[in-house]
Amino acid sequence: MRMAELSRESGVAVATIKYYQREGLLPPGERTSPNQARYDATHVRRLRLVRALLEVGGLSIADVRDVLAAIDEPATSTHDILGVAQHGLPLARRDVSDEDRKWALEHLEAVTAERGWQLSPESPAVEAIVDVLCTVRAVGHEWMLDSLDRYVDAAERVAEADLGAVARLGSTESIVEGAVVGTVFGDALLVALRRLAHKQASRERFGDA
Amino acid sequence: MRMAELSRESGVAVATIKYYQREGLLPPGERTSPNQARYDATHVRRLRLVRALLEVGGLSIADVRDVLAAIDEPATSTHDILGVAQHGLPLARRDVSDEDRKWALEHLEAVTAERGWQLSPESPAVEAIVDVLCTVRAVGHEWMLDSLDRYVDAAERVAEADLGAVARLGSTESIVEGAVVGTVFGDALLVALRRLAHKQASRERFGDA
Repeated sequence: MRMAELSRESGVAVATIKYYQREGLLPPGERTSPNQARYDATHVRRLRLVRALLEVGGLSIADVRDVLAAIDEPATSTHDILGVAQHGLPLARRDVSDEDRKWALEHLEAVTAERGWQLSPESPAVEAIVDVLCTVRAVGHEWMLDSLDRYVDAAERVAEADLGAVARLGSTESIVEGAVVGTVFGDALLVALRRLAHKQASRERFGDA
Repeated sequence: MRMAELSRESGVAVATIKYYQREGLLPPGERTSPNQARYDATHVRRLRLVRALLEVGGLSIADVRDVLAAIDEPATSTHDILGVAQHGLPLARRDVSDEDRKWALEHLEAVTAERGWQLSPESPAVEAIVDVLCTVRAVGHEWMLDSLDRYVDAAERVAEADLGAVARLGSTESIVEGAVVGTVFGDALLVALRRLAHKQASRERFGDA
């Protein structure tokens, strides 16, 4: 199909498609003349994914580029494949003191050790958790630590469901894309469901106003 | 204390404090002369909260302003108090067709009805969930729907822990601030823990590379 049809099919304006191409988010079409190229269903699919990652996933152009690179680069093992979804995804970062970091790591280790989790203190996820715990303490809301075990439990349940679903996807290509999609949109889904659950729990606990 | 001491105490640069004041994120100090004002511990506390919401919570200046307004405006009932944390928080939004919306709502209702949840289709959280489900479908990853019940279960467990912890906070003021802090940083915590849990589940399922 031509650019105009690609635009119609994907629902993305031609100017936007060209912008994505300049940013390296969409592979070039097959040249048919100096001014024309041909596109196919893989371009439509990729465009939908790009828009979804930007609009619903809330990723930056640079993050989307990283995520697509991970999808397009075949990894060496299934464990590695699923690991790619860990990279290029937005997690908060902040400087914390050594003492605060030690305190946060001890708390995290206490609740994860009994579940047999192995922590790599330098991994982005552990860094992000340390940041959040130190921040919560700095703003005087240390009570959140009391719920840490429940959070770990919830994360574990969701992660097991995610892994089970992704592993059933079949081809390596679809597993990689599934891991990325599941990570990004799973975040958005979990955050929104937590809002809804708050409302429901509040209604049950305190009744309607 | 004077501005210089407020800056030392909070770890926020004077120029940044003045910027926050212009943006309405920090109440003015008590004027002691035309050029000087006095600040107290409430300013230090508020500054720490503002920085945390911006840096770790990832909120925009406008979001922080909304969240602080909710904290500073006494609500009428405890259910309402906890409801303020629902507003001014970033949730994805996207246009979806009526047919897609209906499909997503049916799925959501199917897994929440048995838990006794009451859905308000026009609430921001439901809108966000509908957006995510429709997006996942549009990019060809409908398999994520299979895990929806697990996600709802996880959200419910976390929300119950949150509500229980917040309700123990005592004063109305601290409950409101706690609801906001718990909502924003709880999101960040849950997202980061999910990454860690993915890694752990992947290790258990596929072994190290």
